[in-house]
Amino acid sequence: MTAKIRVGITHGDTNGVGWELILKAFANNEIFDLCQPIVYGSEKVASYYRKTLEQTATWRVVGDAAEAKDGQLNLVDVVGESEVKIEPGQSSPEAGRMARLALEAAVADAKAGKIDVLVTCPINKAGIQSDEFRFPGHTEYLQSAFGSNGLMILMNKTLRVALVTTHLPLSKVADSITADRVEEKLRQIHLSLKRDFCLSAPRIAVLSLNPHCGDSGLLGNEENDIIRPLVQKMNEEGMPCFGPYGADGFFGAGMYRHFDAVLAMYHDQGLAPFKALSMGESVNYTSGLDIVRTSPDHGTAYDIAGKGKASEVSLLQAVYAAIDIYRNRARYDEVHANPLPFGSHERRDNRRTFNG
Amino acid sequence: MTAKIRVGITHGDTNGVGWELILKAFANNEIFDLCQPIVYGSEKVASYYRKTLEQTATWRVVGDAAEAKDGQLNLVDVVGESEVKIEPGQSSPEAGRMARLALEAAVADAKAGKIDVLVTCPINKAGIQSDEFRFPGHTEYLQSAFGSNGLMILMNKTLRVALVTTHLPLSKVADSITADRVEEKLRQIHLSLKRDFCLSAPRIAVLSLNPHCGDSGLLGNEENDIIRPLVQKMNEEGMPCFGPYGADGFFGAGMYRHFDAVLAMYHDQGLAPFKALSMGESVNYTSGLDIVRTSPDHGTAYDIAGKGKASEVSLLQAVYAAIDIYRNRARYDEVHANPLPFGSHERRDNRRTFNG
Repeated sequence: MTAKIRVGITHGDTNGVGWELILKAFANNEIFDLCQPIVYGSEKVASYYRKTLEQTATWRVVGDAAEAKDGQLNLVDVVGESEVKIEPGQSSPEAGRMARLALEAAVADAKAGKIDVLVTCPINKAGIQSDEFRFPGHTEYLQSAFGSNGLMILMNKTLRVALVTTHLPLSKVADSITADRVEEKLRQIHLSLKRDFCLSAPRIAVLSLNPHCGDSGLLGNEENDIIRPLVQKMNEEGMPCFGPYGADGFFGAGMYRHFDAVLAMYHDQGLAPFKALSMGESVNYTSGLDIVRTSPDHGTAYDIAGKGKASEVSLLQAVYAAIDIYRNRARYDEVHANPLPFGSHERRDNRRTFNG
Repeated sequence: MTAKIRVGITHGDTNGVGWELILKAFANNEIFDLCQPIVYGSEKVASYYRKTLEQTATWRVVGDAAEAKDGQLNLVDVVGESEVKIEPGQSSPEAGRMARLALEAAVADAKAGKIDVLVTCPINKAGIQSDEFRFPGHTEYLQSAFGSNGLMILMNKTLRVALVTTHLPLSKVADSITADRVEEKLRQIHLSLKRDFCLSAPRIAVLSLNPHCGDSGLLGNEENDIIRPLVQKMNEEGMPCFGPYGADGFFGAGMYRHFDAVLAMYHDQGLAPFKALSMGESVNYTSGLDIVRTSPDHGTAYDIAGKGKASEVSLLQAVYAAIDIYRNRARYDEVHANPLPFGSHERRDNRRTFNG
């Protein structure tokens, strides 16, 4: 029997829906056939939500992730205190602190090779800020911790979306669309599609910045000046990418079904249609890190925290996605680990001539 | 028997899918129970598509819309030539000219009271430009023809979306979001929801300009400076509007279901998620004109023109929507035609004091 993939899961903000999701997701034993889950969190908080939400899932506390076992929900108690304050739906430094402890422990174990993939439950961006943590969110913290430029990819069953610009005022978006930046994102997506999703010849769609692709320059010149030439250049280099496409027609006609990923120019352009189509079943994946990291597509959901109304589907999808990507990466890296000095495809023309 | 609503329909660009939609939509006689359709177009072109696409719909040519009869597809031949050039899928001045003739005749008849509502098939924006026609599209032409500020509302079964800015380069959007402009659009939508959709207390959702509602100013100030104060002001005036909402969360959580209309700040923000959710069954409605005007949500579809692949669903929805709105308006206008000098709700406080 091969070893199960070790899935590290952080409990997130303890006043949010994190523990509810975890307890619901691991209530069914079948998931232990798929992976070895290791939750980084507080046992006290877990017990509180198990009781108040009448959940049946059980866990075993392990002193260290290295002691985790198959067939059970392993819990590394990163808080370890018997008195913790739990206020469902409230932003608090206490909840932020417990979220941070889980994240730090999981990242340390990831670096030490004690977990294979990382799935993070939602944190509260305000609550987690402290002298120990000064990052706008998970993505930026992980980029810093792993020292690499992650790229956020939102994905559901039929669609993967990445953004050229993310958290920017709309007034600054147009100036931020440069050929270099778009090219960098295209290369990141392309590599991720190959390595993380095992697509040998991925097709990427690029959206336009302006309505209707700029309507031949009438509604803006970025398409003609930046995006079109870049798409052509990438194709000449052998990276199949297409566009630019006007966002409304692209999503309205279901054209996204023909592509492996869509690169949107800015936040709402990509995420509003993506989320409209996802119906709460999408996953946030940070590509480009040393570790595979996914998360559900929603936040702490304070409005329903502690009420038993949260759906675990997106967390489960995040776990499944992380496992898939981990396997894909392993396969890709194995194949590409020892390339022949002269690959067969590079020799093909010579051999044809030789044999012909 | 009450008179049927007279639906004027323009054939649009003759190299596009207009005639195919019309022939398919009126192939079934049942629609004649609902309305009296009067097509403005070319009989020659109609015959061409009827034959090549093996359609069964028939029509009667009438010399004037006033001679149109119930129970049949009436055709006003606005071209009247026996030799016309038809090149499916090609933009041509000839196709543009025929589109213009239909539009001009239908608008003249609308003004003369010969039709009750107007449904337009798609035109090609490039092909129709000429010395006689210098407008970017239907909406602008109709605004000019009827001398009023129309507001485009895109709608499907569950959702109505209007835009504060429409065909603008993205770099110019932020500067165009002013309190006056947003307020004007809110008033237009509000009146339209009451008069055209018979909603006595419509609820309008307002989207934010920046991602995540500007994240307390971190991602832009337009929410705090412009949109929030305006929403508050409108509510104080008795117009129930809500927001601002970040577009991705709003569509992702299905919040649009709780509102009668959504006001988006710019083109792709509103139309990309709207069209993603519409699946080709939406209608474009120009509110605020003297005549009720609707159109299908798609363009000339040159890529499938003349191939029999076009779906008539959106055209039919446009016809149904126009009829519904016409009826609603008639009801609203009747009720509001002769208000009492002192309405009962204005007297209520006085009477209470008087009776109490």
